[in-house]
Amino acid sequence: MALSKKPVTGMKDILPQEMAIRDYLIGQIKETYGRFGFSSVETPCVEHIENLSNKQGGENEKLIFKILKRGEKLNLETADSEADLVDSGLRYDLTVPLARYFANNAGQLPMPFKALQIGSVWRADRPQKGRFRQFYQCDIDILGESSSLAEIELMLATSTLLGKVGFRGFKIRVNDRKILKAMANYSGFEEAQHDTVFIILDKMDKIGIDGVANELVESGFAPEGVAKYRTLFEEMTATADPLLYLTEKLKEYIEESVMISLKEMIESVITCAQADFEVLFDPTLVRGMSYYTGTIFEMEMPEFGSSVAGGGRYDQMIGKFTGIETPACGFSIGFERIVTILLDQGFVPPMEKAKVAYLVEKEVSADKLCTILKEAEEQRTQGVQVLVAKMNKNKKFQKEQLTKEGYQEFKEFYQTPLV
Amino acid sequence: MALSKKPVTGMKDILPQEMAIRDYLIGQIKETYGRFGFSSVETPCVEHIENLSNKQGGENEKLIFKILKRGEKLNLETADSEADLVDSGLRYDLTVPLARYFANNAGQLPMPFKALQIGSVWRADRPQKGRFRQFYQCDIDILGESSSLAEIELMLATSTLLGKVGFRGFKIRVNDRKILKAMANYSGFEEAQHDTVFIILDKMDKIGIDGVANELVESGFAPEGVAKYRTLFEEMTATADPLLYLTEKLKEYIEESVMISLKEMIESVITCAQADFEVLFDPTLVRGMSYYTGTIFEMEMPEFGSSVAGGGRYDQMIGKFTGIETPACGFSIGFERIVTILLDQGFVPPMEKAKVAYLVEKEVSADKLCTILKEAEEQRTQGVQVLVAKMNKNKKFQKEQLTKEGYQEFKEFYQTPLV
Repeated sequence: MALSKKPVTGMKDILPQEMAIRDYLIGQIKETYGRFGFSSVETPCVEHIENLSNKQGGENEKLIFKILKRGEKLNLETADSEADLVDSGLRYDLTVPLARYFANNAGQLPMPFKALQIGSVWRADRPQKGRFRQFYQCDIDILGESSSLAEIELMLATSTLLGKVGFRGFKIRVNDRKILKAMANYSGFEEAQHDTVFIILDKMDKIGIDGVANELVESGFAPEGVAKYRTLFEEMTATADPLLYLTEKLKEYIEESVMISLKEMIESVITCAQADFEVLFDPTLVRGMSYYTGTIFEMEMPEFGSSVAGGGRYDQMIGKFTGIETPACGFSIGFERIVTILLDQGFVPPMEKAKVAYLVEKEVSADKLCTILKEAEEQRTQGVQVLVAKMNKNKKFQKEQLTKEGYQEFKEFYQTPLV
Repeated sequence: MALSKKPVTGMKDILPQEMAIRDYLIGQIKETYGRFGFSSVETPCVEHIENLSNKQGGENEKLIFKILKRGEKLNLETADSEADLVDSGLRYDLTVPLARYFANNAGQLPMPFKALQIGSVWRADRPQKGRFRQFYQCDIDILGESSSLAEIELMLATSTLLGKVGFRGFKIRVNDRKILKAMANYSGFEEAQHDTVFIILDKMDKIGIDGVANELVESGFAPEGVAKYRTLFEEMTATADPLLYLTEKLKEYIEESVMISLKEMIESVITCAQADFEVLFDPTLVRGMSYYTGTIFEMEMPEFGSSVAGGGRYDQMIGKFTGIETPACGFSIGFERIVTILLDQGFVPPMEKAKVAYLVEKEVSADKLCTILKEAEEQRTQGVQVLVAKMNKNKKFQKEQLTKEGYQEFKEFYQTPLV
């Protein structure tokens, strides 16, 4: 079979220029989150197929790259369906594997546990510009902390990180799944129908309250209920303090403590943050994953439209592995999106060291080469990056290429010193 | 289906203590190889199945994790064999993907190109202690450099790295596939049989020259040829300078320039190296991969028996993708083995920052918490790692746990200051 030069569909080779940005970003992530006490962990890229198909992953479960069974376990003749052929798959996110990891290793981990994960995930999405089938995710999670200290720290850490990388004026929108539910209950929408309501509500920023109301009616919700929902929404939007308004209006549908805690959480983040950003309550924020149970949040930057980070509380997922409910809350930054923004901005990671290229005449003797290599070694010990390369025939072009790679200084070596 | 807490067979969860060592090692690798002018690159973990099955990977091609086709491309009813079901697989090394990468991107890369890759590879090996089915490889490669400057730099860079990580007294054994071939030709072994000869020769350190000679005869090689080989080997071993001896003996079978270049290469590495290690010619060194075409080398540390790094020249592989022969030479360190050695030694990465844990009484008010978080932020700005956690009921145990995690200092916060 002929060999293919291109990567497989939807995946990409990463060139040195982009790698330098990725490495820089990973360095900033590890340092910043490290200072907040997050510990790095890693899970295998391959997961049990049953863990990946446990209905926690929503739409992502349709996009799994599945791995063929091996050896005797693979029996093509008796296989009736795909399920008979595979035993594992590539992870589509880092949250499901983290829940398994925690279940497997809790005895050896501090409690609460603050985890940092950076790693590839795979989704067999329809390929499109800027979206790849293998991409990095970067998640921080706090497991075993039920109070809003978890949410506050996740938001502070992430905004500190983005501030360090040079982003300004971003915004965190915060909501709570319990408020979404209370609003739906207040309007008389049945519990079983809530997910449909949320999916429509999620379009608010695109179609507005008129569009949402129409779509709710079209989906079969009672017009009186929709009208009630609409009034609630419009009155809330008109007040200076929507959270206060909802606290009053929804008091029969939600515990006051949820509202107080959310208010305090938002205020705490605003007060403590050092970076320049906004935190605000957004009752239209939904977020897709069905595993969220409480607070949800999303971070966006005005100049880049869509969100660059998102997360929330998922207090029930770990219990699915262990049988013991464990509070959990996570924040995932859009690593690839941030890299793309930095690339588009022409960002160059701050240079830590001088870069010098030694160009050596091809005919140089072994002895002479040795002297040159020793000089290079000495420079490197002093922190200089030294490239030693044989001189190409077209020396001018070679230097141009190396200048593009960031080499600012050149030194030429000949067997017989030039006069 | 029930969820599984354990990772899939043969793969492992990485705990924070090991991750700290891995992160430290990756940092050292990126810094050290960076100073030698190696640029980081990355390829997708998933490769075309035809690239992985091109006979370059030797035994590893039997160990591929294969990925099921998706959507319409998968037709279970018409599938006759495994090959009909899969279109890709997880890479089993970083060399084949690098050759594809270079073929795909050469126009955008400097020439010669010095590449650094750190990434996971997968092999469905029989699980055994200390060997995993997903593991990191760390390779440096120089593409487009035909002179021994490539080999010298690879050896210098790798020994500098291992020296920095604290290893002493290691040894690099060097050979050339051309010498192996010349020795076989000298003994009258047919070209087509050379691979069999090399596989037997590879056992020299285990079974000695007697064992090798016996096995050659048993495998059907002419006793006269085997005797000739044996005499050559024994005489060579007895001389002070085996390379000089072979240069004389093999002069009809190998160009003298190969021998001179190998000698100069070894001397250069010895002269230029700053780390404490040995470099020596070892005519019994074989190395398994069939893609090697010239120099081969392996690094070992006396206290850990088997090799910790290995590599060589593979001048033909890139041409298989491009049709144009491109000289190439690489050195791969055994990342996982080094991590295991460091773990076994109880190695703790040098601490860059102080670690302080703030323990906060559960009942603390939002205002008070805010003051605490601000203090933490300020400390972090000064480079201190500050963990903020709610105080557990068993504070003593919590502190013990945190001490294990490296926290040396604790600060307790209460709503009403303790008197």
